[in-house]
Amino acid sequence: MNRDFHDELILIDALEHSNWDRDLFNELRAGGVTAIHTTLAVWEDARTTLDNIGRWHRRFEQYADLITHARSATDIRAAKTSGKTAIIFGFQNASPIEDDLALVKVFHELGVRVIQLTYNNQSLIGSGCYEKGDGGLTRFGREVIKEMNRVGMLVDLSHCNERTTLDAIETSERPVAVTHSNPKWFHDGIRNKSDEVLRALERRGGMLGLSLYPFHIGGAGRTLAAFCEMVKRVVEQMGEDHIGIGSDQSRKWQDADLDWIRSGRWTFAVDFGEGSAANRSWPTWPSWFKTPADFPNLTEGLLETGLSRGQVAKVMGDNWLRFFDEAFRPG
Amino acid sequence: MNRDFHDELILIDALEHSNWDRDLFNELRAGGVTAIHTTLAVWEDARTTLDNIGRWHRRFEQYADLITHARSATDIRAAKTSGKTAIIFGFQNASPIEDDLALVKVFHELGVRVIQLTYNNQSLIGSGCYEKGDGGLTRFGREVIKEMNRVGMLVDLSHCNERTTLDAIETSERPVAVTHSNPKWFHDGIRNKSDEVLRALERRGGMLGLSLYPFHIGGAGRTLAAFCEMVKRVVEQMGEDHIGIGSDQSRKWQDADLDWIRSGRWTFAVDFGEGSAANRSWPTWPSWFKTPADFPNLTEGLLETGLSRGQVAKVMGDNWLRFFDEAFRPG
Repeated sequence: MNRDFHDELILIDALEHSNWDRDLFNELRAGGVTAIHTTLAVWEDARTTLDNIGRWHRRFEQYADLITHARSATDIRAAKTSGKTAIIFGFQNASPIEDDLALVKVFHELGVRVIQLTYNNQSLIGSGCYEKGDGGLTRFGREVIKEMNRVGMLVDLSHCNERTTLDAIETSERPVAVTHSNPKWFHDGIRNKSDEVLRALERRGGMLGLSLYPFHIGGAGRTLAAFCEMVKRVVEQMGEDHIGIGSDQSRKWQDADLDWIRSGRWTFAVDFGEGSAANRSWPTWPSWFKTPADFPNLTEGLLETGLSRGQVAKVMGDNWLRFFDEAFRPG
Repeated sequence: MNRDFHDELILIDALEHSNWDRDLFNELRAGGVTAIHTTLAVWEDARTTLDNIGRWHRRFEQYADLITHARSATDIRAAKTSGKTAIIFGFQNASPIEDDLALVKVFHELGVRVIQLTYNNQSLIGSGCYEKGDGGLTRFGREVIKEMNRVGMLVDLSHCNERTTLDAIETSERPVAVTHSNPKWFHDGIRNKSDEVLRALERRGGMLGLSLYPFHIGGAGRTLAAFCEMVKRVVEQMGEDHIGIGSDQSRKWQDADLDWIRSGRWTFAVDFGEGSAANRSWPTWPSWFKTPADFPNLTEGLLETGLSRGQVAKVMGDNWLRFFDEAFRPG
């Protein structure tokens, strides 16, 4: 019965970054996933990002039975009707726009709808969560946010440092999002967010996508019940309209891919990110969310906390859908 | 009275390459120009072409009272209604797609609707009109034409060598164009086209855009009457449905710009193109077509040859419009 409820949901996962193939798109269908926001760049420059866009064009041809490109919330609704998964293009770093303000609209025309301002390190826009210093939003950063507001592109702050995050929340004329992080009070990881950030987000109409990534929940041993209780508490903390899911699922990558994602071209050393020298590989996922096909477990777990069906539907996707309706509309 | 006739025309100029500013867009309006195909790249690679696209986005903002971006023939009709000039994006070389087939669709999404396969020199696709040798269309070239056919992008052969031109006319499943050249029998210039090319174009449903560039008509001394008689003869030769105008107007460039257009990065020497050491600057335009504001002279001259109003309307733009309706439709 709850599976029927799950299958009727508009289920939006606001971050998945995988090494895509037919099996993985089938997993999304098996999990009843209506739309995902996926990553086209972490350290890539403009030219290499065009390659990645070209690769998605091929996928939309090859897997036309399973996926479709979403440029708007309307496209997500159409995907639900046609039984496909809608793919929203995003960057996890500002690297593709290089130092060139005009590239915001260029990539918007190519369907990119989300840019995370920094990826762990300082970017030309602001500071990442692994930097010791944080001078906040830069001059260029203020221009980029203004232009993103104008064209209808969502500012994502998940990997940004504290001051940069708070600056961006205040500076943006349109609500911003943290697509894939948890509250620090749930797990004190470097990528999780302070209560001050959560308050600012809520006050400015922003969204928080709660993450299932092992390093963000405190390891694979964290139970489904503990995660769902956290969701319920965040609903009480921020209100039921500001919360969604951003699982940060990443499937079928090798360790060499993780090296690229962590170290890019900025260091010749190995950066262990949230891992360590002893634990440098991809983390182990919890038994109740090994792949996106396990999303029905999450629906079940949320219902068991006593959240209403309406609240669960909001958290699982309705909030993102309403938010994207506004965020992707040209300013 | 003929000016009224002129003002009602859908006037399409299938090649203008200028150093755009408000004065030049006003010239287009003064000449009653409904649409132009303009050049975003001659030697530019993918990344630099993104800059040029970004520059056009700024122009569409700054000069919104005068111009509008055309992605389809429907957009050209809308421009006529709103009294603006529609801008069609094109490349005069395949350089922006580099060696990357996926970039055809990427640039199509950015609004590019025309790619000329070569610019004077050998490209990765075929041979240019200044090359001694011509091995015809390359393996990559066949793939690019297939992909252009698929996405709805027009193959332009104006600067291509003879065999490459004939290969492309035969290979393309959709009709192709020579957007800005004249018959060699009118003026035996290196950029003009043989009777064999004209026959092949007509047989395959292609279009020839007749050029007003001094080097293509035999110099600034060529009279309006002589040019218009040529048009009338080409109407007899190819039929009234296969002919349009592609003036090759180029305004407000300096000599340094001409050096870039001719020599790019492929030579450290100065290439004189259609000029010579003694005559290396921009050519002088004929008194009857100094700028696009002089287009009414052309309408007048064509009517004086005895071509009917319907025939003149076809040559001045109706043929391109009908052709673009088909050429820009996804395959």
